[in-house]
Amino acid sequence: MRVNGKHYESIWIKENDPTVVQIIDQRFLPFRLVIEDLKTPDAVVVAIKEMHLRGAPLIGAAAALAIYLALINFKENSNPDTYLLQVAEKLIAARPTAINLKNAVDRQMEALKHTGSLQEKIKKSFKVAEEIISNERENCRLIGEYGFPLIEQLSKRKKGKTVNILTHCNAGWLACVDYGTATAPIYLAHDKGLDIHVWVDETRPRNQGARLTVWELMQHGVPCTLITDNTGGHLMQHDMVDMVIVGSDRTTLNGDVANKIGTYLKALAAKDNGVPFYVALPSSTIDWEAEDGLTEIPIEERNEEEIKYLEGEINGRIDQVLLTVKDVPAANYAFDVTPARLVTALITEKGICQPNKDDISNLFPDKLKRTIL
Amino acid sequence: MRVNGKHYESIWIKENDPTVVQIIDQRFLPFRLVIEDLKTPDAVVVAIKEMHLRGAPLIGAAAALAIYLALINFKENSNPDTYLLQVAEKLIAARPTAINLKNAVDRQMEALKHTGSLQEKIKKSFKVAEEIISNERENCRLIGEYGFPLIEQLSKRKKGKTVNILTHCNAGWLACVDYGTATAPIYLAHDKGLDIHVWVDETRPRNQGARLTVWELMQHGVPCTLITDNTGGHLMQHDMVDMVIVGSDRTTLNGDVANKIGTYLKALAAKDNGVPFYVALPSSTIDWEAEDGLTEIPIEERNEEEIKYLEGEINGRIDQVLLTVKDVPAANYAFDVTPARLVTALITEKGICQPNKDDISNLFPDKLKRTIL
Repeated sequence: MRVNGKHYESIWIKENDPTVVQIIDQRFLPFRLVIEDLKTPDAVVVAIKEMHLRGAPLIGAAAALAIYLALINFKENSNPDTYLLQVAEKLIAARPTAINLKNAVDRQMEALKHTGSLQEKIKKSFKVAEEIISNERENCRLIGEYGFPLIEQLSKRKKGKTVNILTHCNAGWLACVDYGTATAPIYLAHDKGLDIHVWVDETRPRNQGARLTVWELMQHGVPCTLITDNTGGHLMQHDMVDMVIVGSDRTTLNGDVANKIGTYLKALAAKDNGVPFYVALPSSTIDWEAEDGLTEIPIEERNEEEIKYLEGEINGRIDQVLLTVKDVPAANYAFDVTPARLVTALITEKGICQPNKDDISNLFPDKLKRTIL
Repeated sequence: MRVNGKHYESIWIKENDPTVVQIIDQRFLPFRLVIEDLKTPDAVVVAIKEMHLRGAPLIGAAAALAIYLALINFKENSNPDTYLLQVAEKLIAARPTAINLKNAVDRQMEALKHTGSLQEKIKKSFKVAEEIISNERENCRLIGEYGFPLIEQLSKRKKGKTVNILTHCNAGWLACVDYGTATAPIYLAHDKGLDIHVWVDETRPRNQGARLTVWELMQHGVPCTLITDNTGGHLMQHDMVDMVIVGSDRTTLNGDVANKIGTYLKALAAKDNGVPFYVALPSSTIDWEAEDGLTEIPIEERNEEEIKYLEGEINGRIDQVLLTVKDVPAANYAFDVTPARLVTALITEKGICQPNKDDISNLFPDKLKRTIL
């Protein structure tokens, strides 16, 4: 999408140098637009772990490129298969909740299994990574197409009056390759001239809403208002939210949705106030082997410093303030699981479906069959 | 309660100088313990508005003392009744949601109506303020006594294993005079040797949980863990919360509870997971004239800078960082209303009751009669 009027994606191969992957280093947003060069799989692992990049589809794409980087950096004196397995393990362990990471690595490993020479492997891994990236891009575009009519209907029902959409965290193009998941229908509705407005949850502790979603939406010209994570319930009670759209880091076959911590609270408020609650996700985010989200999805616990310190801009530099008593313990669960019963529908690249096994299976018969076999 | 081993309350008359009210200036906590002198009613209005002090019972106590300060600072050349009315109006307008402010001012004005000379008025207003303060102190102590058995029962049911209590914002002694409302049963349970642990919501945007509740609990030696406001639902889903206790800024006759923004979301999560959700409040927080919380309680909207900037400690000084795009609009609703249907029970200075008109009336027959007459 647009940054200062120019089209950007969140990850790409450097122009004129196919040995370098480039990303927007999201740690500096919204204060500075910094492009980072990633030249080795270890650099990608660090970038994923320390959240230079984040978002389920994007970390899948980055992992796929990391396998390619591993192969072009391969030292002849070791065993390529053992080496690749090590890289794959490190990548999958970098962050546990988003299934896209594992899905992308598995797809690379499967493709490389029957590929001969190192040169062929390099070529193959590049092709697979490009496919994954181009699939993610296209899937998000399609999520936009399928999600748009939901906003359009609300706009018609409100006779063109502003449609208020609440979103949590960043499920925007920065979390994907382009368009975003939750934001794809929003961008499309805006581009088609519908009067929409987005309530952006700041999304503590890392403030992806305040730092990334606000920046994305403002760069694209979509009207938005920043709120604390505590505010959505009050807005829904007062009829100030027409729909909620969020992304997902992993969705089970039963339709349980792991997403950024706090999503579950918004889903409860939406249910309590009759506000539709949509989850936008490409099928790369579906865990075809999990059914019950609460027991089967691993929830990442991150460093307690992320809770106790907050980063922002002060006197023109990016720095952190301590916001509590220095030695208080803090717990930092990064995700929660929203049970399917609270989800109005899933918006996928194949269309909209109910969050249950039958509906998901009907939409993706091939993927399910492959898993069961 | 204890600060560095010494007993403090949140507001008091300066030793050896009855013309000065002293408070802990809460804007500097937990980084510095600053005592502020308040010498005029205008200084109290500023302190309430800019949250040098906050918390429903405490702003009631401060307002009562402001009337006393107004009288001792009274200039002989104006009309005392007109002047007092102006002060009263300014005080009530300082913050709209907590009813204690209006209740305390009304009580002073009523008492002063039939009091003769300025000297008599001064004496009377001092007496009324002292009564209000001592009532608030005693009410919180009693809330502790009545709330304690709820924790004790959980502790027995868990065979002495840690009872995990979640609280939102600061309904501690800093919000009252001493003991706190939500924290009174917690302090008592701790002092009586029960194994308890408190999950403290940081409570954005002003972080009263991270800054005040954490500090209070740690100073008193109560084990606690800081979490973001997004986290409570996840903890409840995983059986990591045994009860929720919060305070209130205004509770209607029907049992609807206005409290810090985000309380409603925790109440929804508690309901969804079968976790008891208690509201601890002195009767000074009950609005005897309101029934429906959602339509009858005014919700304060505060400055958007409170959302966009976060204050903390950096390099030994207290400063603010910008956490989002500088010119994004932000909405800052300070409170929300938790409908009575989500509240397990109210813990008051007269005992525990169900959040409905009949039960509240039974517990406080005099107050209700007075309102209806």
